[in-house]
Amino acid sequence: MKFQLEVCFSPELYRHKLTKENFAVVVTDIFRATTSICAALANGIGAVIPVSGEAEARKYKEKGYLIACERNGQTMNFADLGNSPSDFMNSRFKNKTIAFSTTNGTQAINLAHEDAGEVLVGSFINLSAVANHLINSDKNVVILCAAWKNLFNLEDALYAGALSDLLLGSDRFETVCDSAKASLDLWNIAKSDLEGYLAKSSHRIRLKSLVSDEDYRYTLAVDSCSIAPVLRNGKIEPAD
Amino acid sequence: MKFQLEVCFSPELYRHKLTKENFAVVVTDIFRATTSICAALANGIGAVIPVSGEAEARKYKEKGYLIACERNGQTMNFADLGNSPSDFMNSRFKNKTIAFSTTNGTQAINLAHEDAGEVLVGSFINLSAVANHLINSDKNVVILCAAWKNLFNLEDALYAGALSDLLLGSDRFETVCDSAKASLDLWNIAKSDLEGYLAKSSHRIRLKSLVSDEDYRYTLAVDSCSIAPVLRNGKIEPAD
Repeated sequence: MKFQLEVCFSPELYRHKLTKENFAVVVTDIFRATTSICAALANGIGAVIPVSGEAEARKYKEKGYLIACERNGQTMNFADLGNSPSDFMNSRFKNKTIAFSTTNGTQAINLAHEDAGEVLVGSFINLSAVANHLINSDKNVVILCAAWKNLFNLEDALYAGALSDLLLGSDRFETVCDSAKASLDLWNIAKSDLEGYLAKSSHRIRLKSLVSDEDYRYTLAVDSCSIAPVLRNGKIEPAD
Repeated sequence: MKFQLEVCFSPELYRHKLTKENFAVVVTDIFRATTSICAALANGIGAVIPVSGEAEARKYKEKGYLIACERNGQTMNFADLGNSPSDFMNSRFKNKTIAFSTTNGTQAINLAHEDAGEVLVGSFINLSAVANHLINSDKNVVILCAAWKNLFNLEDALYAGALSDLLLGSDRFETVCDSAKASLDLWNIAKSDLEGYLAKSSHRIRLKSLVSDEDYRYTLAVDSCSIAPVLRNGKIEPAD
């Protein structure tokens, strides 16, 4: 018997999902929380604590944690770093634990934590690492797009399509989910020129002044990182 | 200045929409409420009252109205007709007013009614009629997909893409909405063989035993009907 694959295009749709038992959730927020978490672990940061609210982030600050906190693309003034992947590449953060709060991504991670058997962090840079982890698990899979203020976005949907492509191609998964089928079709249109395709996305247009071209290219470089980050005891760490 | 076009893939996302002022909403529930409402008006039924709950439908029954009521694809036992387009083609219903309640579609119509300046009923069979009505209006447009139990579905998304194609092509509209852009891409994949494309949809698979091939073909026959149904004083009637 095959495992079921389902895609949720928005946290707002997560509670309506059909998958109810024995499932892992892959949270994606391509611009930028989940890409940055992968970048953090790839650059030797020990663990990332996903924090939903700004007030909670301030409490971690008081406890002495390093804080990454962003709202609407801007780094908060009390934070040590923002949400850009390059912010997490500083060698002075090596082996540290960072508390991280963003507009959409970290809240989606905490939402998934409420009922998922396992929560993974997915981005284009660790696409195959997450796929391989899931193919070797015995669980159904829900891909949760963090979206932008609950609205569907193209880049998270494309990631859902890319991951669906690998999972369905492995022959261990099947799907009855129209969102998975749509995301797969969108991925097939975009995959030969991801950067060109996403030039039309609302996120890219909105964040153009905030995201450097270097960050943008790093974000869309498929499989530059071999870590599958997983949430354990409130901390995101490499799965293996 | 151009008018804005936005697409909501689920009623659950409607309250997050960016369009706040001077807007018409086109509600679509391809399988099957909005297709059936168009079929009803095309076949001489005077008006359709959209009713959200079963209890409310029973009240209309007591008042002597003809009742169309469906839940999960099945006609309710107290109803005079179900939600299939062919149910509404009976000549004995000519000029009558029918109270209509369905799993998803009529509830979405009533949701849109809460804040929209105008509510229209869209389906493939009246695609151009609705597009022309909107092109000749001076309003922003939100396309609201009724979805299936709040989950994204392919057929409503394709209709959103088809209507977006006509509106954006008219040069009176523009969009910053990723859902509109995604639905347009999906429509461009599917439009040359809508029936073939939708064979994979979850609705088609779920309803195969309930929807006749004749109904299915009728539903996907673009522009067989020239009516743009509009909600006025609680009743859906032809716009002109």
